[in-house]
Amino acid sequence: MNKAGHQFYVLKIDCPDAKGLVHQISGIFYHHGLNMVENEEFVDIENGHFYMRSEFEGHMDPVKVVEDLRQSLPEKANIELSEKHKKDVVLLVTKEYHCLGDLLVRHFFKDLQANILAVISNHHDLGDFVHKFNIPFHFISADKLERSEHEQVVNDTITKYNPEFLVLAKYMRILTPDFIHRYKNRIVNIHHSFLPAFVGAKPYVQAHARGVKMIGATAHFVNENLDEGPIIVQEVTQVDHQMDARQLAKSGRDIEKIVLARALKLVFDDRVFVSDNKTIIL
Amino acid sequence: MNKAGHQFYVLKIDCPDAKGLVHQISGIFYHHGLNMVENEEFVDIENGHFYMRSEFEGHMDPVKVVEDLRQSLPEKANIELSEKHKKDVVLLVTKEYHCLGDLLVRHFFKDLQANILAVISNHHDLGDFVHKFNIPFHFISADKLERSEHEQVVNDTITKYNPEFLVLAKYMRILTPDFIHRYKNRIVNIHHSFLPAFVGAKPYVQAHARGVKMIGATAHFVNENLDEGPIIVQEVTQVDHQMDARQLAKSGRDIEKIVLARALKLVFDDRVFVSDNKTIIL
Amino acid sequence: MNKAGHQFYVLKIDCPDAKGLVHQISGIFYHHGLNMVENEEFVDIENGHFYMRSEFEGHMDPVKVVEDLRQSLPEKANIELSEKHKKDVVLLVTKEYHCLGDLLVRHFFKDLQANILAVISNHHDLGDFVHKFNIPFHFISADKLERSEHEQVVNDTITKYNPEFLVLAKYMRILTPDFIHRYKNRIVNIHHSFLPAFVGAKPYVQAHARGVKMIGATAHFVNENLDEGPIIVQEVTQVDHQMDARQLAKSGRDIEKIVLARALKLVFDDRVFVSDNKTIIL
Amino acid sequence: MNKAGHQFYVLKIDCPDAKGLVHQISGIFYHHGLNMVENEEFVDIENGHFYMRSEFEGHMDPVKVVEDLRQSLPEKANIELSEKHKKDVVLLVTKEYHCLGDLLVRHFFKDLQANILAVISNHHDLGDFVHKFNIPFHFISADKLERSEHEQVVNDTITKYNPEFLVLAKYMRILTPDFIHRYKNRIVNIHHSFLPAFVGAKPYVQAHARGVKMIGATAHFVNENLDEGPIIVQEVTQVDHQMDARQLAKSGRDIEKIVLARALKLVFDDRVFVSDNKTIIL
Repeated sequence: MNKAGHQFYVLKIDCPDAKGLVHQISGIFYHHGLNMVENEEFVDIENGHFYMRSEFEGHMDPVKVVEDLRQSLPEKANIELSEKHKKDVVLLVTKEYHCLGDLLVRHFFKDLQANILAVISNHHDLGDFVHKFNIPFHFISADKLERSEHEQVVNDTITKYNPEFLVLAKYMRILTPDFIHRYKNRIVNIHHSFLPAFVGAKPYVQAHARGVKMIGATAHFVNENLDEGPIIVQEVTQVDHQMDARQLAKSGRDIEKIVLARALKLVFDDRVFVSDNKTIIL
Repeated sequence: MNKAGHQFYVLKIDCPDAKGLVHQISGIFYHHGLNMVENEEFVDIENGHFYMRSEFEGHMDPVKVVEDLRQSLPEKANIELSEKHKKDVVLLVTKEYHCLGDLLVRHFFKDLQANILAVISNHHDLGDFVHKFNIPFHFISADKLERSEHEQVVNDTITKYNPEFLVLAKYMRILTPDFIHRYKNRIVNIHHSFLPAFVGAKPYVQAHARGVKMIGATAHFVNENLDEGPIIVQEVTQVDHQMDARQLAKSGRDIEKIVLARALKLVFDDRVFVSDNKTIIL
Repeated sequence: MNKAGHQFYVLKIDCPDAKGLVHQISGIFYHHGLNMVENEEFVDIENGHFYMRSEFEGHMDPVKVVEDLRQSLPEKANIELSEKHKKDVVLLVTKEYHCLGDLLVRHFFKDLQANILAVISNHHDLGDFVHKFNIPFHFISADKLERSEHEQVVNDTITKYNPEFLVLAKYMRILTPDFIHRYKNRIVNIHHSFLPAFVGAKPYVQAHARGVKMIGATAHFVNENLDEGPIIVQEVTQVDHQMDARQLAKSGRDIEKIVLARALKLVFDDRVFVSDNKTIIL
Repeated sequence: MNKAGHQFYVLKIDCPDAKGLVHQISGIFYHHGLNMVENEEFVDIENGHFYMRSEFEGHMDPVKVVEDLRQSLPEKANIELSEKHKKDVVLLVTKEYHCLGDLLVRHFFKDLQANILAVISNHHDLGDFVHKFNIPFHFISADKLERSEHEQVVNDTITKYNPEFLVLAKYMRILTPDFIHRYKNRIVNIHHSFLPAFVGAKPYVQAHARGVKMIGATAHFVNENLDEGPIIVQEVTQVDHQMDARQLAKSGRDIEKIVLARALKLVFDDRVFVSDNKTIIL
């Protein structure tokens, strides 16, 4: 809420495309006296689907607005209307500090559109660092636990915080489909990526052996196939034969932290729509 | 026109922002039974200005549509509605082949949204090359001519072709304000660019002496200040101390031809609005 | 040979690393009175292998220099010493013009360190374009021929020109291991590339369905696994959800032609060493 | 020193070019039984100047090695031989956190080839953050002080730490030529940069008004002309008309911190030579 008592809202709509949609929606805004400060639409011609994201300033009764929209729009419309707010998130990490460090620093200086409620890790290494920022750090060892047992403890811990999003900031554990399903399109992961792709252990060693000339990072939502959910942001950087696997990994980490931060900005600003296995970003 | 007898149109509107604009405009489309296949809007909040670009398919009476729009929109609205078409262009070049070559090849394979009507040069060097593509080449020497006299001949030649756009594909002559005024926002230039900027002769020699780590290119509309009109596309490439001025120039040329081609695609697709000294690209 | 009657040479050496190699090699240069104008070395520490590339100006008896080098260097040393020269090449294409066009234009303006001796295609489409540049075009249809039969005719045609390198400038046929073996590390291919990789038909359609945020190109030597030989140059460009498969392909083509040209410059300047499945570029 | 008691050294040489230099230098290494693990040379043909950087492992008497080198090399040779070590640095900042945060986090995780001895600022804002990392923070207000007075206090504070390098991590004060002279080629600055350049206040506001399509950052050594010393690293990122000045600045900050970190890695690894107003990076 700004000082004039005005509030800011974000509306996300997606539905089967139809003639006159923009006219109907903008009519409702007009009728409610809403002042649009940003608006983007996209029509996926191939699949006949309409996407729209708007930001408003004004006084509104959100329930009434959504009701009016629902009456105008096709039955299957997805409508999300919410006051602009910092998203509640929990971070999951393992041992690598680069993404975590970047996010905690941005958070400390209030430059991340999120409240980091807690950090959970299957290793203790990053605890001291997290404590500097007065954020709860939960070390949940996976030693002597079945995958499902460990995940159960992790999940119980997460549940206490009731986060809107989970961020896998270099969390090196595979999640079960059950867990992923519970947070559908609400888990963001950062993953190194290469051309060609290298599966299996030690990807930077493989990439070095293969003499790649660029390495990259992909931020994506997590679905059942861990590293293959809908892509949000991708970026690469040039490398050369002089860099050994360790140096490649170092370059990769710089890209990863920037890519993750960019992706989270888009997600936390409610700009990302997921359609099947891809994203539309407005 | 496609095989169903349908036609494709592009509409560009910009006007002072006002509540309900999208509603009014989309109402007119709806009323005329037009099928929108692409639509983008942008509101410049700071300056209170509204921009919109739409593509339609359908049968329409353009005069009637523009009339209806004009009645709904603020008085100062700019409205351009035209059938989608290849733009008629004349290229101006001097001695460098890289941009010219790229454009003529794309044109030959019908991959440029333009008809290249003629190429004009103040040197004869590129004539043989242009003739391969069966395009008129006019060598207009500037020897023994005043700037204004030479430009007069150039202008007379251009006039015969009645082009919609002029492309300065490495034309190394300064144009007079009169000339530029005649083709306001219709002359696209490609210019090398550096960080920091180097004014004066032999920019690549200066850039090398300064040890820049990247060189770039800027495609822009030409206004009274030759290399400082509204920017359409910019791109850079990494360079290093091993490259001498000649190699820097070579790298620069690769960037220039790609940047010019990208900019022309945007311009010829009617995606570029000019506002003061900047562009909005929808 | 320059006007002073001097000649320019390029020397490439690679051999198992040993103490004092640079000292020995530079001693031989010194002894022969050679003036080094460029020199690069690289030691692959992991594999204990030494790489060196030098450019010289001067008068020399190449046979004697190589002899002296061979006596000083480890037994398994690879030594290539040749006068700087334009490489003789044959291009293979199918239907796409973008790489071919870029190379022919550079060649016409003597900006490619190569003599393009001929263009061979399994389709006739690009013939008219090639003829503009007075370069032989061989249309060798694959219709009604076994793969090996077609390749035999292609190979016979190539043989007549005795090229040093083959360039697959969007040649959409798979080559047999026999053929590839014959031109080991002398065939350069350009290949679209994606993160993640898409195998099978219509990669741009797959990439679009997957919502990739960047697309790229990889230039590489061809080995037994068509698209997986040693990488020479890679580059990517940003794309977004607004681009359909056709537009993605268009963006991809701009990257492909630049990447292929950069790779060929490195190869034709004798800068690329191949070690197993990777390149070292000096 | 590694566990075998071996030490690692870096040697930097630059001198007027002469025939046989590499031979002479490598002879001295060989004579001293040194094992080269990395070596790069560069000859600036235009200016006839030779640059070389080597890394060694072994036991050596550095004084003796330098003595031998000095006898072999031209009189004006610059020779720096030092054991590999983390560089002692002092950071100067004002109010912006992004570069400082990135460096402190890397430092905390021992990923910066430097010991950050202290942070000095003309504002108090960043003090709490710095204290988290147990690094001395000196707030030296410039209020009511002449420029030279303030700088005197800053300088006195720096002197106590006796740093090898100063890093201006968004220090928004102009330094006097005297100060700069004292730390010649030992002050690294990070500076936003634009095409075209914008001088004067609020560069991001100017850049936005001009509609630039990319913004960048330049890390450089500081010389008498504050933002124009020898460039170490440059990078840019794409922006568009939708971003207001505040968002441009945010994008700029992400680039700045990455560019500064890359530049410091090169400097702290003794890879950067300065020649007049440019750098050679080996």
